[in-house]
Amino acid sequence: MKPTVTIEYCPKCGWMMRAAWMAQELLTTFADDIYSVTLQPSETNGSYIIYVDGIAVINRKELGHFPDIKEVKQTVRDKVAPEKSLGHSDRK
Amino acid sequence: MKPTVTIEYCPKCGWMMRAAWMAQELLTTFADDIYSVTLQPSETNGSYIIYVDGIAVINRKELGHFPDIKEVKQTVRDKVAPEKSLGHSDRK
Repeated sequence: MKPTVTIEYCPKCGWMMRAAWMAQELLTTFADDIYSVTLQPSETNGSYIIYVDGIAVINRKELGHFPDIKEVKQTVRDKVAPEKSLGHSDRK
Repeated sequence: MKPTVTIEYCPKCGWMMRAAWMAQELLTTFADDIYSVTLQPSETNGSYIIYVDGIAVINRKELGHFPDIKEVKQTVRDKVAPEKSLGHSDRK
């Protein structure tokens, strides 16, 4: 079974659109590597957490900044397809 | 526990973007009524199926046409929030 990804976002913060955008980025980049991406509105203000198979791998509050797409892809890649090159997103 | 919605789409058909758009429509319209929306690429060509709590409620192949957003919202509403008015989307 391929891994599942969940993006938990704070709807009151207006983060639905970026969560949906990141979902599409992940579904495109990891088309053969992930089973699904779930968009889940959070009950907690300020939450932006990305889970792989239910384990939080990116958490805005722990990072101290909003994760950018490169950071998200690198982190998800390390979990779901560690051998995969991300091209541009692997350069600093 | 609020209901979950899943949109299973055919990625080879190019339906990711409309699935992501419908996910956002559902998360907006049913903000207080659903727990999450999952985007799931299908292994089956031509699939576009919407599930509520794992039960298929909209299936493109059974309908014989691509479901429009009004049809999707009315069907999901009937399952998750039957009392809810959809405004424009409830007019013929």
